[in-house]
Amino acid sequence: MLDEKFMRAAINTAREGILYGQTPFGACIVKDGEIISCMHNLVWENMDITAHAEICVIRDSCQKLKTIDLSSCVIYSTCEPCPMCFAACHWARIDGIIYGARIEDAKQFGFNELGISNETMKQIAARDDTSFAPIEITADFLRPEALELFRLWDKHGGQRVY
Amino acid sequence: MLDEKFMRAAINTAREGILYGQTPFGACIVKDGEIISCMHNLVWENMDITAHAEICVIRDSCQKLKTIDLSSCVIYSTCEPCPMCFAACHWARIDGIIYGARIEDAKQFGFNELGISNETMKQIAARDDTSFAPIEITADFLRPEALELFRLWDKHGGQRVY
Repeated sequence: MLDEKFMRAAINTAREGILYGQTPFGACIVKDGEIISCMHNLVWENMDITAHAEICVIRDSCQKLKTIDLSSCVIYSTCEPCPMCFAACHWARIDGIIYGARIEDAKQFGFNELGISNETMKQIAARDDTSFAPIEITADFLRPEALELFRLWDKHGGQRVY
Repeated sequence: MLDEKFMRAAINTAREGILYGQTPFGACIVKDGEIISCMHNLVWENMDITAHAEICVIRDSCQKLKTIDLSSCVIYSTCEPCPMCFAACHWARIDGIIYGARIEDAKQFGFNELGISNETMKQIAARDDTSFAPIEITADFLRPEALELFRLWDKHGGQRVY
């Protein structure tokens, strides 16, 4: 129930982003059952190719919690974090990633995704490093609602991929 | 000769960062033979776990050039970009990465690196995607000078890994 509430917060902020001309991605970071940060992608708004929703909420959470260590936090993302965002979660020592749509879905809608899944990133990192503490991943969570964001974005017009 | 000049600019800014309590990483982005941005890691300064040198110069270059497309740019980094930074280079469509030390070096100095090399990232992405346009990578460039940064940082005292 709570997981659904947090994912829907991410979905809602993604929807708002779409209406403002942003791409269809949202994320929120939760600690002790409370949302620390909930933001949509800001690549176009900030003219910053790194301003994915996950990077935005990680940066914002670091500011708000005054720490670079987000262990005991969980990130909810409307789409599987790309390798940039997955690695950012690793650096931030986030406990878990819960995502809706998949990298492959974003790719199909035209985004220039680096096609490496979170599971593959985990496997490779663990293969060469016995001390690697893997992030727990929950895939396909509320996937139909997350996919709907791409369709809304597609219909909204003026959409620009990158 | 020019490559050396640009890498030394990255090394010099990393050295400055160390003196201000930052971690031993620097990067610069070059377009048409001119440095667009040259910055050191700002993770501690900004209390932002994503503020690696490469992310900082990519963001700064997007601002300065007023575009999210950094194709025809090359990034010089004192250390092999971590998977977060490598993927950011991919998103920015940067032409080439020239780096000094390796991810494994940073790991040995205590950084919680996700141990996936740039070459491995490239190989996996290319394996599943025939349209993948791989970034050109030049490894071990001025490696002894780049490694020296870790030693300087180690000697400087008060160093904090993450």
